[in-house]
Amino acid sequence: MFTQRIYNFSAGPSMLPLPVLERAAAEMTNYAGSGMSVMEMSHRSKAFKAVFDETKALMREILSVPDTHEILFMQGGATGQFAAVAMNLMGVTGRADYAVTGNFSSLAAKEARKYGEVHIVCDTSDKNHTYIPREADLTLSPDAAYLHYCANNTIYGTEWDYVPAAPCPVVADMSSNILSKPVDVAAHGVIYAGVQKNMAPAGMAAVIVEKSLLGREMPITPTILSYKTMVEKDSMYNTPPTYNIYMLGLVLQWVKEMGGLAGMEELRELRAGMLYDFLDNSSLFTGCAERGSRSKMNVTFRTASPELDAKFVKEAASQGLVSLGGHRIVGGMRASIYNAMPVEGVRKLVAFMEKFELENK
Amino acid sequence: MFTQRIYNFSAGPSMLPLPVLERAAAEMTNYAGSGMSVMEMSHRSKAFKAVFDETKALMREILSVPDTHEILFMQGGATGQFAAVAMNLMGVTGRADYAVTGNFSSLAAKEARKYGEVHIVCDTSDKNHTYIPREADLTLSPDAAYLHYCANNTIYGTEWDYVPAAPCPVVADMSSNILSKPVDVAAHGVIYAGVQKNMAPAGMAAVIVEKSLLGREMPITPTILSYKTMVEKDSMYNTPPTYNIYMLGLVLQWVKEMGGLAGMEELRELRAGMLYDFLDNSSLFTGCAERGSRSKMNVTFRTASPELDAKFVKEAASQGLVSLGGHRIVGGMRASIYNAMPVEGVRKLVAFMEKFELENK
Repeated sequence: MFTQRIYNFSAGPSMLPLPVLERAAAEMTNYAGSGMSVMEMSHRSKAFKAVFDETKALMREILSVPDTHEILFMQGGATGQFAAVAMNLMGVTGRADYAVTGNFSSLAAKEARKYGEVHIVCDTSDKNHTYIPREADLTLSPDAAYLHYCANNTIYGTEWDYVPAAPCPVVADMSSNILSKPVDVAAHGVIYAGVQKNMAPAGMAAVIVEKSLLGREMPITPTILSYKTMVEKDSMYNTPPTYNIYMLGLVLQWVKEMGGLAGMEELRELRAGMLYDFLDNSSLFTGCAERGSRSKMNVTFRTASPELDAKFVKEAASQGLVSLGGHRIVGGMRASIYNAMPVEGVRKLVAFMEKFELENK
Repeated sequence: MFTQRIYNFSAGPSMLPLPVLERAAAEMTNYAGSGMSVMEMSHRSKAFKAVFDETKALMREILSVPDTHEILFMQGGATGQFAAVAMNLMGVTGRADYAVTGNFSSLAAKEARKYGEVHIVCDTSDKNHTYIPREADLTLSPDAAYLHYCANNTIYGTEWDYVPAAPCPVVADMSSNILSKPVDVAAHGVIYAGVQKNMAPAGMAAVIVEKSLLGREMPITPTILSYKTMVEKDSMYNTPPTYNIYMLGLVLQWVKEMGGLAGMEELRELRAGMLYDFLDNSSLFTGCAERGSRSKMNVTFRTASPELDAKFVKEAASQGLVSLGGHRIVGGMRASIYNAMPVEGVRKLVAFMEKFELENK
């Protein structure tokens, strides 16, 4: 039982900024004099339309989304987008390129195979996904309808530090690093993100799609996954996840107040730097990802034994540093340090690791 | 600007019980001593698993869902289910029967045509969807994979008072009347409901599916719409809409405290009775739906002119009786009186209608 807020290192859903939660609580039964909760508003009402428009405008501003691209809020999370990307874009040539650098990019490729031919341009499973390939090593197809990559690999703790160039539209799954640093939107045909890590409560995908790519969908595409329909109806073909959109708006306001993406990038460098510096000097803990490929959102590490890993995770939790266990596929530890993780949380984690190291030499 | 809570007659999203909102607000930054919001919890955490299991168990208990049926929480709302139903069930014979009694059943049939042949067993557009057909008038096919009907037609204000019998599984869209009265779950192969009217915040569909129907899906079914996968993974193939599930749990607890479905049915009879009694004795207002087909969730009515309708909607709103405008397809007025609408709200509405009638004779 914790009477205070704790530091939650979960990979997603994950921490939200405290001021955002406090404002949501304060507005829960009467939003801005509407006499009702945002949850209760008709999505066609003026009051909700204002929330929606402001959220979309803030997202365009903060992520510097050019006019060539449209912003969509869709249901189904990133997993829904695995199918949506293929159904909306693959029909042109019937094949697509996929960079496999972890579990979710592998699942994305698997889903795409339902709708066409998939060519794997790299597969980092040869070294248990501990690295990101060099651009020169990607074996791109001449006739792919698009190239798909996952910008940050939550489970393995690796992150692309470049946008791969390709002769076709580039599609990025940015679920676990969107809003954490500036991004070249124009270099992408589609960017999508399940919102539950760095944006809002689970249950939505934010999608940025280049308008020139619309209208290529397969006839079997379910309407809720059709980019064209969603653009035409401004994400309101059916009732959108209204409260998630409102919460995203509050998070975006917080990001803006904190200095936008430049401010977020400074913080991510600071948080990740503290952890990696400690790992590089530790005789007990080892980082899992290769140095040049390390994620600044998900820091994976381990001790010499699964037993000691388990002890660490358990003792940390008792100190209010929770959800530090690695994903069940890989074991070990993982500290997910998204935008909303206070620097103080990482400081406490490093202090605890120091203490644990001394006690378990 | 309203400093107090108002009565919101929106067709969806719509009112939630005030005690539910107050509890959600109180638990927003620290749920049950977890030190975090439910929004921030890993969906794999013990704390969230408890929320999930309790919500599912309450839904099974309150709706008397038999062991032959599984309960799923999916993203994409009812519109997502329009595709899911067809993709999961239609493959058996390649055709399905649809009862068209309004806008949403028509959209469901349209979506299903992407995946097979659709036979329309009734189409009430001959009388602008103001009635529900008699069971004897449904022209069922001998070889349909399923029969689909929409149990309550939000826009037109009509409601089925029987479950149609068919030689195939019966599928019901209960988005706008689920949890408002006892329902014979065993008589259905699938029941689904977008949660934003009578259950929880928008962004989820609650689905009850007969286990014997699993595994018939088309190979092109997106994983997020696969009943089989969702059953195998207990609605957690991917990150579920965790906060919607939590809110549904709070609503279900409230329903149970209020006497379960019997209690909800008493209230719906009371609310609808007050409104229809007034309409039947009014010389200014007329009910839109035929008497035997009237919905007890959405009461549609009008005056003699669109101008007077608009005046009514505007003046009512100034009294804190909001969202009384009819759907843009039909105009007129609509009072949506779901479970969370207090009887007092309907009393105030009727009193306002009386006053308006006197002033506008």
